[in-house]
Amino acid sequence: MIFGIRATIEAVEAGKEMDKIFIRRDMGGELAHELTTLLLKRNIPFQKVPLEKLNRLTMKNHQGVVAFTSAIEYQNLENIIPMIYEQGRDPFVVLLDGVTDVRNFGAIARTCECAGVDAIVVPTKGAAAGNADAVKTSAGALNVIPVCRVSSIHNAVSFLQKSGVRVVAASEKAEHDYSEADYHGPLAIVMGAEDTGISPDILRIVDDMVSIPIFGQIQSLNVSVATGVIVYEAVKNRK
Amino acid sequence: MIFGIRATIEAVEAGKEMDKIFIRRDMGGELAHELTTLLLKRNIPFQKVPLEKLNRLTMKNHQGVVAFTSAIEYQNLENIIPMIYEQGRDPFVVLLDGVTDVRNFGAIARTCECAGVDAIVVPTKGAAAGNADAVKTSAGALNVIPVCRVSSIHNAVSFLQKSGVRVVAASEKAEHDYSEADYHGPLAIVMGAEDTGISPDILRIVDDMVSIPIFGQIQSLNVSVATGVIVYEAVKNRK
Repeated sequence: MIFGIRATIEAVEAGKEMDKIFIRRDMGGELAHELTTLLLKRNIPFQKVPLEKLNRLTMKNHQGVVAFTSAIEYQNLENIIPMIYEQGRDPFVVLLDGVTDVRNFGAIARTCECAGVDAIVVPTKGAAAGNADAVKTSAGALNVIPVCRVSSIHNAVSFLQKSGVRVVAASEKAEHDYSEADYHGPLAIVMGAEDTGISPDILRIVDDMVSIPIFGQIQSLNVSVATGVIVYEAVKNRK
Repeated sequence: MIFGIRATIEAVEAGKEMDKIFIRRDMGGELAHELTTLLLKRNIPFQKVPLEKLNRLTMKNHQGVVAFTSAIEYQNLENIIPMIYEQGRDPFVVLLDGVTDVRNFGAIARTCECAGVDAIVVPTKGAAAGNADAVKTSAGALNVIPVCRVSSIHNAVSFLQKSGVRVVAASEKAEHDYSEADYHGPLAIVMGAEDTGISPDILRIVDDMVSIPIFGQIQSLNVSVATGVIVYEAVKNRK
């Protein structure tokens, strides 16, 4: 944790990775404005909270700002995709829309790293914390596989499509069985939130939607298991 | 929790499901002997522990015995298999050898229920607790799918084989790719412990061993993800 407004600005400017920053709701002044402008520019999640919340987080003199440093070094999707093409390979990425459970995030990262996925894309808001628990659950995969934080998964899907990547979304609403889809070539798989699935605005623009058949009474798989099933089907298909 | 030796005997005899029972290490006498004989006969896990451990579990008057009731109703594998055959179906079961993490157990149960697996088989010793956390992680699947507790997974494999069930084990040591295996007909899939995998004495008697290919630096998948990948491959293959 980093405390204080100036210390946080300095850490961010020095390139320190941040997981999330809490700022006192009613904080004003030039420095506070400088901080939020910087955070928006660098795509770092922050939340305005009441003073009591900050006091619960630490007994130290936080001066209205508490910053949680990240255990993950985030990378830039717009750099990674061209780099993969330059290596003569077809990109294979996984996007997470609203997967907020740290253990699911860690398990998905582990699966993706094992399966040879090139990168995981998460949103700035509504993502699981990239903290030590996530790294632990990932069995260290989060230290190895590139993770890209984007301000909007919708825009990231558009960017990927413009880059020639076919985007396949996993959705219970899909009539297409996951085992009948085509996973060849440049590929992105979108997995949705544990409860609500993928946002409708993203489902509208993807190239294909697939579902995993359910034969029991429980109506959905755990998102990390579902990711494993689809990613490994893609791996087999791409061979 | 149930406390006391006589209360525990009565609860077990009344058919109350038990997750685990702790008994004071140096407890003697006829009643104690009656209890342990009953637990062995009913295949209920128990552990002899020092008095201090019992005192840490409860401040109540435990009289040397603390019993944790189970959130799961266990069923009998030797009843289930013939019943499935009588229904004109091929049994499809999953055995867990040493999967001790409650969340992995819950996630596996959820996957199995969704995939239409007939039953999950766990050992009396070295299994995850069948407690409320497991049921919660399973999204309620553990209230639906039959779970069989057996004194030995090795013996359960032998029993299944004698009943005409082909037993396939997931092992990193297997050279056979999971996607090339035959999953038709009566089938059992054995998944192993998170760290050590399946015991060698079980690997020696199974009909086939399969592995999931790993392309990254992290050398293994989470066991609940691996179960999802193999179980859904089997589902597809069995169609």
